[in-house]
Amino acid sequence: MIAAGASGTTRPVTGCDVLVVGFGCAGATAAVEAAEAGASVVVLERASAPGGSSALSGGELYLGGGTSVQQACGFEDSAEAMHAFLSAALGPHADEEKLELYCRGSVAHFDWLVDHGVVFQPSLHDRLTWMPDTDDGLMWLGENAWPFTTLAAPAPRGHRGPVPFYAGRALMDSLVAAASAAGVVTHTDTRATELVVEDGRVVGVLARRFGQDVEYRAERGVVLTTGGFVDDDRMLADHAPALLGRGKVSDGLDDGSGITMALAVGAATRRMAAHETSLTYLPALAARGMLVDARGQRFVNEDAYPGIVSHAAVAHRPAPYWVVVDETGFEELPERERWGVRPAYAAEDLDELGAELGMPEGALAATVAAYNRDAERGEDTWFHKDPRWLRPLVAPYAAIDVAAGFHPGAREGVAEGGGVVGFTLGGLHTTPDGEVLTWAGTPVPGLYAAGRSTSGIHGDGYISGTSLGDATFFGRLAGRSAAAGPS
Amino acid sequence: MIAAGASGTTRPVTGCDVLVVGFGCAGATAAVEAAEAGASVVVLERASAPGGSSALSGGELYLGGGTSVQQACGFEDSAEAMHAFLSAALGPHADEEKLELYCRGSVAHFDWLVDHGVVFQPSLHDRLTWMPDTDDGLMWLGENAWPFTTLAAPAPRGHRGPVPFYAGRALMDSLVAAASAAGVVTHTDTRATELVVEDGRVVGVLARRFGQDVEYRAERGVVLTTGGFVDDDRMLADHAPALLGRGKVSDGLDDGSGITMALAVGAATRRMAAHETSLTYLPALAARGMLVDARGQRFVNEDAYPGIVSHAAVAHRPAPYWVVVDETGFEELPERERWGVRPAYAAEDLDELGAELGMPEGALAATVAAYNRDAERGEDTWFHKDPRWLRPLVAPYAAIDVAAGFHPGAREGVAEGGGVVGFTLGGLHTTPDGEVLTWAGTPVPGLYAAGRSTSGIHGDGYISGTSLGDATFFGRLAGRSAAAGPS
Repeated sequence: MIAAGASGTTRPVTGCDVLVVGFGCAGATAAVEAAEAGASVVVLERASAPGGSSALSGGELYLGGGTSVQQACGFEDSAEAMHAFLSAALGPHADEEKLELYCRGSVAHFDWLVDHGVVFQPSLHDRLTWMPDTDDGLMWLGENAWPFTTLAAPAPRGHRGPVPFYAGRALMDSLVAAASAAGVVTHTDTRATELVVEDGRVVGVLARRFGQDVEYRAERGVVLTTGGFVDDDRMLADHAPALLGRGKVSDGLDDGSGITMALAVGAATRRMAAHETSLTYLPALAARGMLVDARGQRFVNEDAYPGIVSHAAVAHRPAPYWVVVDETGFEELPERERWGVRPAYAAEDLDELGAELGMPEGALAATVAAYNRDAERGEDTWFHKDPRWLRPLVAPYAAIDVAAGFHPGAREGVAEGGGVVGFTLGGLHTTPDGEVLTWAGTPVPGLYAAGRSTSGIHGDGYISGTSLGDATFFGRLAGRSAAAGPS
Repeated sequence: MIAAGASGTTRPVTGCDVLVVGFGCAGATAAVEAAEAGASVVVLERASAPGGSSALSGGELYLGGGTSVQQACGFEDSAEAMHAFLSAALGPHADEEKLELYCRGSVAHFDWLVDHGVVFQPSLHDRLTWMPDTDDGLMWLGENAWPFTTLAAPAPRGHRGPVPFYAGRALMDSLVAAASAAGVVTHTDTRATELVVEDGRVVGVLARRFGQDVEYRAERGVVLTTGGFVDDDRMLADHAPALLGRGKVSDGLDDGSGITMALAVGAATRRMAAHETSLTYLPALAARGMLVDARGQRFVNEDAYPGIVSHAAVAHRPAPYWVVVDETGFEELPERERWGVRPAYAAEDLDELGAELGMPEGALAATVAAYNRDAERGEDTWFHKDPRWLRPLVAPYAAIDVAAGFHPGAREGVAEGGGVVGFTLGGLHTTPDGEVLTWAGTPVPGLYAAGRSTSGIHGDGYISGTSLGDATFFGRLAGRSAAAGPS
């Protein structure tokens, strides 16, 4: 920190009420709320255009409790059912205080997004996949899979923009337009380097802009929405080593810069080891057969949300992971949904196939025998996969090496990191209102944060849509808090 | 922090060269080294006597590379073999810089301990157990189990005092005597509350002593050896939620006080989610049969070090966990080694037993069938348990609920937390020399730390003896650094 405005400085100073650092979806919603509360708002973005990692994401927002899109698709839902699902799926140890706010406010948040130009088609994508290849606005995110079906009435809550595959760009285009309409000023190519503290209060930042040192002064507050730290290997080694060597889901700028700046002024972090994991397997293919670990053991219902399945594998089971299917299962999946995936091994005999895959003798055959027994009577007694996916597997069998990744139809390079990609979920410790806390648990005056630079609603689990979801929801609250200014 | 020595203060001030906060094994070794380097040393201890959690521990020190005890027991060893083992057992992501120092310096550290009165009998305890019931000074800590046997020549490296079961008290008695002999002054019943910083340098602490505010001034440095944070549920929720609701391995004062004090002056933490886990199962019984999870699946070679087995269960497999044995296996274990454990279920038929345990139909029978096939040919193709433990299991079979815990012969209450107890391994980010680092990676002048208030040699794994081992090893280095004073 520096004593800003020191005599003799010649760097340009830009003043505003609320300064937002980082123009992903958390920054966008914070900026809009602050501007609509009457504050003059400047948003800084390191890249040459707004968007951040949000714009490169799948674009799902986890919303429910009875949104108009859910209703149009014929689903009843409640905040309580949404809470029961998320508490389990994001847990153990989901942040109950933030989660309850998030679920109670979800319909209103949906309406706010729609009012600000975000578009969701009122149609359901009813297939198992990472991302729909359609413009459907609603998708299942594992609500209809065991064990969640035993906890709450299932309703699909994945809301997304009207584009196939990655819908994050559409979301960000809408939010950037909303910010612009609200009078928010954007400075791109501007990298905040340090928070400025005066009399114990954060009053602005120092930054680099087109090779020049510049300063921003915020009368009311600074909101950090700079993203996580998956792009900084030193921070990963210190706090989330499980992501070392894995692929990075980010725009390349998630280097924890906001977290680091806040730590330097006494801010606290929370749950820095938490992270999301995606494994490059095809959910619709695995559900038609099985997913097994290096020893040929099944370990999860393959129709669960792919993030849950990925975490069950990567965090808990020995690699490599194999999708084992038969001819019927493979051919049932339309070619365009195969994303270039092809079986690496095939055999008439399971002992032969298991041996080729380096599994213990008899392991794969025993797993398939137990599966087929269950499939014949229509009940997966091991992992409770929905009966609609159960069918005894018959020779010839094929095995797909999940680490080989996807090819056409998906982003390239996704098979890096052994077919495992991820991002960080830990970060600054904030109140639900977005105040950044010190290690002593008191707010850092003038400093707010939201999105993946903070620890959000997540415990040890993750479901798609909860990152953009909590970033936009708590981004709005942080923007409003900052606009309210010093009390 | 406060501006100490402010005019008008009436609190008593005690001066010294090096102030050590916390009198467990890290504090003891830091104090001895500092005193032997010529510094006047005061050690503060919150409890009414020295010892801390170290004195309540098993007392194992992980030492090797060819100690005189290893030699007397007929084992050759090298720093390289020790490093290869620990790098794997404490990994992935063990701290390679600290680990290399630790292994290279291990024989010298052993000699230093012996020179300072620590006693190790030159005899090997060659049984699978959490803690020997003898005075043997050397024990295996999983070096002779797969996969470690494939990485380095196995040698036992668990060094311990000449008492049955918990040997931590004997270790601490020796170290406390050594500190006293070196002229170290001890203030018990004294709780440090705040670090005192002047001109950017830590120069002492404020403390409470018998209900009075007191101050300590350290000319050369303050060494924090205050232990981990397993006793603070708020810190666990923020940083290591996996330990919430588990039993706590501590003296009840491991509330992260040193970490918290250091954070307040800008210190950084590292790997706060890392933790040790112990499951209350009998290693020697599990090795004679099998350990299975809630679904009746084996998941580890049961002859591995119990800490490895516990982590494999608790972190990665669904509870409850069962030890399944037959009559021969159970009766082979002498009564005094059974620690009061009794089978909860018994049956002639495995399907019946599996059903009683709530496992999927056929699961347990399939696991035992695969195990027996392997046992007959003397090779555990699944998990590579040593052939000496392999014997086909025969009816009647018994199952022991691991969560029921131990009874006579062990500490009471150990079955709390579902039979899972643990402690934290994350903490302050230090250099190998014990300097506490800021978030920016620069030392906090005047501040040093060691033991479980720091992140030590551990990555995601844990082996007994590496906590007292790294605490005494790096405690000595921190004491020496502090005695060297400002550069």
